[in-house]
Amino acid sequence: MTTTIIGPGLIGGSMALALRKSGFANRIIGVDTNPAHAEQALQLGLVDEVLPLQEAIERSQVIVVATPVDSLTRLLPQVLDWMHDGQVVLDVGSTKSSVLAAVEGHPKRGRFVATHPMAGTEYSGPEAAVLGLFEGKCCVLTDIGKSDADALGIVQKLYAALGMHTTTLNGADHDLHVAYVSHISHIVSFALALTVLEKEKDEDRIFELASGGFNSTVRLAKSSPDTWIPIFRQNRDNVLDVLDEFINTVSRFRTLLIKKDFKTFEGLMRQANEIRRIIDH
Amino acid sequence: MTTTIIGPGLIGGSMALALRKSGFANRIIGVDTNPAHAEQALQLGLVDEVLPLQEAIERSQVIVVATPVDSLTRLLPQVLDWMHDGQVVLDVGSTKSSVLAAVEGHPKRGRFVATHPMAGTEYSGPEAAVLGLFEGKCCVLTDIGKSDADALGIVQKLYAALGMHTTTLNGADHDLHVAYVSHISHIVSFALALTVLEKEKDEDRIFELASGGFNSTVRLAKSSPDTWIPIFRQNRDNVLDVLDEFINTVSRFRTLLIKKDFKTFEGLMRQANEIRRIIDH
Repeated sequence: MTTTIIGPGLIGGSMALALRKSGFANRIIGVDTNPAHAEQALQLGLVDEVLPLQEAIERSQVIVVATPVDSLTRLLPQVLDWMHDGQVVLDVGSTKSSVLAAVEGHPKRGRFVATHPMAGTEYSGPEAAVLGLFEGKCCVLTDIGKSDADALGIVQKLYAALGMHTTTLNGADHDLHVAYVSHISHIVSFALALTVLEKEKDEDRIFELASGGFNSTVRLAKSSPDTWIPIFRQNRDNVLDVLDEFINTVSRFRTLLIKKDFKTFEGLMRQANEIRRIIDH
Repeated sequence: MTTTIIGPGLIGGSMALALRKSGFANRIIGVDTNPAHAEQALQLGLVDEVLPLQEAIERSQVIVVATPVDSLTRLLPQVLDWMHDGQVVLDVGSTKSSVLAAVEGHPKRGRFVATHPMAGTEYSGPEAAVLGLFEGKCCVLTDIGKSDADALGIVQKLYAALGMHTTTLNGADHDLHVAYVSHISHIVSFALALTVLEKEKDEDRIFELASGGFNSTVRLAKSSPDTWIPIFRQNRDNVLDVLDEFINTVSRFRTLLIKKDFKTFEGLMRQANEIRRIIDH
């Protein structure tokens, strides 16, 4: 199938690589408002050609919108306007309520499937695209009742081609869940990086000692604000709720240290150890 | 050299593997108060034999104390008491002020070198021992002015055999530095794991969406309280200082979200991005 990727960066570009390799796409068109990125996507072989948006839509059977979530809500109604019968459009954004609201009531709403493949790295742009990024991971399809059956079927095929399993959630639940398992990790990582970088101003040898544990905790602090500010903006209320709970929990550890109550501190650590059940599988 | 490892777990056991492979140690004696761990260390080939403490010391040229930091401060003066001329003892604990205070003024103080190899994983015990754990990492030698030159020389040879480079710090600076680049990461990771696990009670599908970013941020929450409670106890004051700064930074992000000041929020994220300079090398 001829597939257009709007925004062939980390996510869109990695999809392009896997869709071509699996045979799902025999021709891939790139659309990018940033000419340098468009050129990179061509050079790296992520896309076969780069076209203006309307022309790319005309020639494609499947259209993937892989831009930051703020441009997503502006772009999608436009894409739907320009689509003709039998085409399918999906987004891959990290927040879902806003994009679902942006197409609510659109006459071609049924041609759109709202998805979120749960995969990524701390890098961005076409050069960050890697084959295998999605393999074995989970993709969330949201509010599928509002998509046409044939459109859903094609999207299921697409994610199967990427090696992903899928799950369904409504948009609001999705946004709450990702606030917990993704967005808060990013804020914590940014705050941790900032705390230690501030200290570095006085203690110039502080990073000599940084090792694996520190690196894995601050890895996400390398992520691009261009991707993440729109996400935090759209999912602000959920992120604030989770942030409040996180601050309460950290403050509880702080109080126990002040009181030298290491017995309760240890009990909380053992509870937290339960995370093994989740991430060791 | 015949080497005794007191506590052949993650750190001690990994040292045993590397010291044997490099040829530094031709015979390795294990000492462990936990009979199950002693048996595992033998079975896994980490040590050649297991002996009671005093007998092990008598037969060794180098003695490595690799127990949790609370038993370290009790054990070390005893080990020094039983040592004879020409022997060397080193510890590998994550905090240094307490252990340095515990041997201050001991008549054989010069035979002791206080070290901290900056390497580890979130696992513990003899089964967690892995070859190559220390390769290319940094080891801190603290308060080296109080160690005999020949003892220091042997310890340098030992860390070279592990593939580590070394750096020197005084004990107090070491403890402040590790509060920033190691201890705080652990508390943040524990608090994050706990926050999400609490939420799981109401939302049973929440972890379906956990992916790489979440996993790397909460990985340290799998760490053993038996290792970490003694560390937090000994380095409590530094950890509290850093924790206060971290809570301030997270709260700053929270305030910016409440005020919808995404411009300042983005500025802080770009500052935090500077961490690339540190961890991408």
